[in-house]
Amino acid sequence: MKPGTQRFDGVEYPDAEASDPVRLGWMRGSPPPPERRIRFEDDRYLEFPQLRWSLSHMRELVPTARVWRGDHASPRWPSPDPSTQASIDALAFVDLDGRHRGWRDSLAATYTDGILVLHRGVPVYERYFGALDAHRPHACFSITKSYAATVAATLIHEGALDETKTVPYYLPEMAESAYRDATLRHLLDMQVGVAYSEEYQDPRAEIWAYARAGGLRPRRANDRGPTNYYDFLVTLRQHGEHGRSFDYKTVNTEVLGWIMKRVTGFGLADTLSRRFWSRLACEEDAYLSIDSIGVEMSGGGLSACLRDVARFGEMMRREGDWNGTEIVPAAVIADIRAGSDPAKFSPTEYPLLPGYSYRSMWWIAHDALGAFEARGIHGQRLYVAPHAELVIARFASHPIATSAANDPVTLPAFRALAQALAGT
Amino acid sequence: MKPGTQRFDGVEYPDAEASDPVRLGWMRGSPPPPERRIRFEDDRYLEFPQLRWSLSHMRELVPTARVWRGDHASPRWPSPDPSTQASIDALAFVDLDGRHRGWRDSLAATYTDGILVLHRGVPVYERYFGALDAHRPHACFSITKSYAATVAATLIHEGALDETKTVPYYLPEMAESAYRDATLRHLLDMQVGVAYSEEYQDPRAEIWAYARAGGLRPRRANDRGPTNYYDFLVTLRQHGEHGRSFDYKTVNTEVLGWIMKRVTGFGLADTLSRRFWSRLACEEDAYLSIDSIGVEMSGGGLSACLRDVARFGEMMRREGDWNGTEIVPAAVIADIRAGSDPAKFSPTEYPLLPGYSYRSMWWIAHDALGAFEARGIHGQRLYVAPHAELVIARFASHPIATSAANDPVTLPAFRALAQALAGT
Repeated sequence: MKPGTQRFDGVEYPDAEASDPVRLGWMRGSPPPPERRIRFEDDRYLEFPQLRWSLSHMRELVPTARVWRGDHASPRWPSPDPSTQASIDALAFVDLDGRHRGWRDSLAATYTDGILVLHRGVPVYERYFGALDAHRPHACFSITKSYAATVAATLIHEGALDETKTVPYYLPEMAESAYRDATLRHLLDMQVGVAYSEEYQDPRAEIWAYARAGGLRPRRANDRGPTNYYDFLVTLRQHGEHGRSFDYKTVNTEVLGWIMKRVTGFGLADTLSRRFWSRLACEEDAYLSIDSIGVEMSGGGLSACLRDVARFGEMMRREGDWNGTEIVPAAVIADIRAGSDPAKFSPTEYPLLPGYSYRSMWWIAHDALGAFEARGIHGQRLYVAPHAELVIARFASHPIATSAANDPVTLPAFRALAQALAGT
Repeated sequence: MKPGTQRFDGVEYPDAEASDPVRLGWMRGSPPPPERRIRFEDDRYLEFPQLRWSLSHMRELVPTARVWRGDHASPRWPSPDPSTQASIDALAFVDLDGRHRGWRDSLAATYTDGILVLHRGVPVYERYFGALDAHRPHACFSITKSYAATVAATLIHEGALDETKTVPYYLPEMAESAYRDATLRHLLDMQVGVAYSEEYQDPRAEIWAYARAGGLRPRRANDRGPTNYYDFLVTLRQHGEHGRSFDYKTVNTEVLGWIMKRVTGFGLADTLSRRFWSRLACEEDAYLSIDSIGVEMSGGGLSACLRDVARFGEMMRREGDWNGTEIVPAAVIADIRAGSDPAKFSPTEYPLLPGYSYRSMWWIAHDALGAFEARGIHGQRLYVAPHAELVIARFASHPIATSAANDPVTLPAFRALAQALAGT
């Protein structure tokens, strides 16, 4: 392997240092030189290494809706104790490929942009790299799903939604779509049979038409496809049976977001502000990417600051409590943590996640730590390990758009830290 | 005149109540019905009455860069005393057309979205209408210019810029443009001879190519024009002499913004955060619209919360001081308040502003109140009357894109309030 590179699936990529967005000088200069520009119109802003800059600058590329932090005084968290931080840096573990690693080195190996560890609710480790800092929102991608579905599960608990109802009960427009017989619970647990490919390598995969509909990819002049999420969702057709197996499709979360907006009258940006940001003493506003008619991307549109994502994880760890206020009913979180049926996970598709299940858009480990996770494809991660009283929030901009590319390092690193802290 | 209308230049427009964006239901629904959608691509988002919604939702229409409020605890201002507010509501005055009016009624007459009055630094009046509230940023349009030029004047004071130097001294790219012989002072006081029309009624006016270059208007497929501000600015050609007369051209502020970015290395968003937002205890982040290469629109791109704009005005009133900290050197503000030569104002073009001059992108009244103003074309206004210890910040979404349409009400209303408060 060449110096300054990392290899994944036989392909060499610049490593974290060689792809550092500050070092590469993206968008620096007045004007930035053409080879250092990242423009939405060029359709390369989510390619590596550009994405190492873009994931910390989404609002500069697409229209966004604010998730307001609310009207509170927003006390800031203190920085971690340096000696605790140093001892975590020195933590040793063996990755899933059998390689001996240190915690500090694992951050570069996973293209980490920021990582924050809470132990018993106190920040014990916090570092930022590249284009990110503590006050800058970073793209969460599919961590967004866990936020959206936690709200949906709460609405079910409150009686505003019924998980046994089918999608057209709330959205008659969807009566001819793949979702005709799919229930809300099918959506929440990603057990919908829908012809929709998220294969990023395949240019004909439906994900590209979906991204263009949502305004996340530029449209060519002759593009006659849908120009918003809803117009795209109604075109989806059934493929396979609902409720049979776990089949991860981002569009399910868009359908869920549509239902919540129809029923509550609030879009996801206002909902997240009202339910979480304004009640968890979040330090900074977050935002959601929106389509041409103002609809938020529920399946991946959130950009937020790391500390505020960690607050959400900490609230989940505390079974919905935040300093005596119930943010999410404990029963909702208990249901999430109980998971769904691990037998519905395909062992060939998820060889690194044996025994996992997926419940209300959280990944449930069913392990001794009681761990559950929210996951974004470029290494974004919110890891909650209640039995270790641990929350880890991490932003990353890994070149490979699948958690499987960083899990061989991430999973044992997080477990090692959980075990080390559980003993303290 | 029909009920529910107001007449300007012989044309009837729906009045403030009839054009209220909440009442009209813009962008409500999931999806909003087609006739209630405001989409960037339709190129109508800045038309009346749509703009009454759009000016409070700019980030949902175009990419933006954050003006961070900084890392302070952000104490909020208290609400005004109700009895003081009621007495201001009852204030009577005569408008420039000879009509007797009350203050409260003047707000609707000027399509006010929000107004905040500070007397001796204390909020004594604060109201919001339509799509706006105290925590939502509103488009400032040309109030942006006063922010940008106050920074530029400070940089001159600090020695980082030289107002006697010509534009190509800082931007060699501009050597063949209209700005070849224009100095920074010409820019700051809008005394540049440049062929550039801001006639909004004329579809061939250069302002439209400028707006398309900046990403504020959609581009047609066959548009081969410039795709960013800088590429547009270098195309501008000279027309008339520099330094001869006041000639208001927004592009002058874009050139100024380019120079500041070239010299300081910081874009306007970071600059406003460092110099003002983080130091004036601003309550909310603001933002700037940006072009396809991330360049902020210095001539009009700012969206900010009303209280934070009022803080800027209050700092100007206090001659640059903010609780003992110098934000802007007093000499810079004294120079602004002294104005430039009123003889350079065309009396036919500005019949409502006799005796005014324009200095460092502020409008100077040269009146007994010592008043000076920042002005946006749809009625946005930051009015500072030092001799009355008064600051008024106002956001509006007036149908007519010129201050002349609301000045017949605004000017006497603000003067009447200044006189009333000066006597207390």
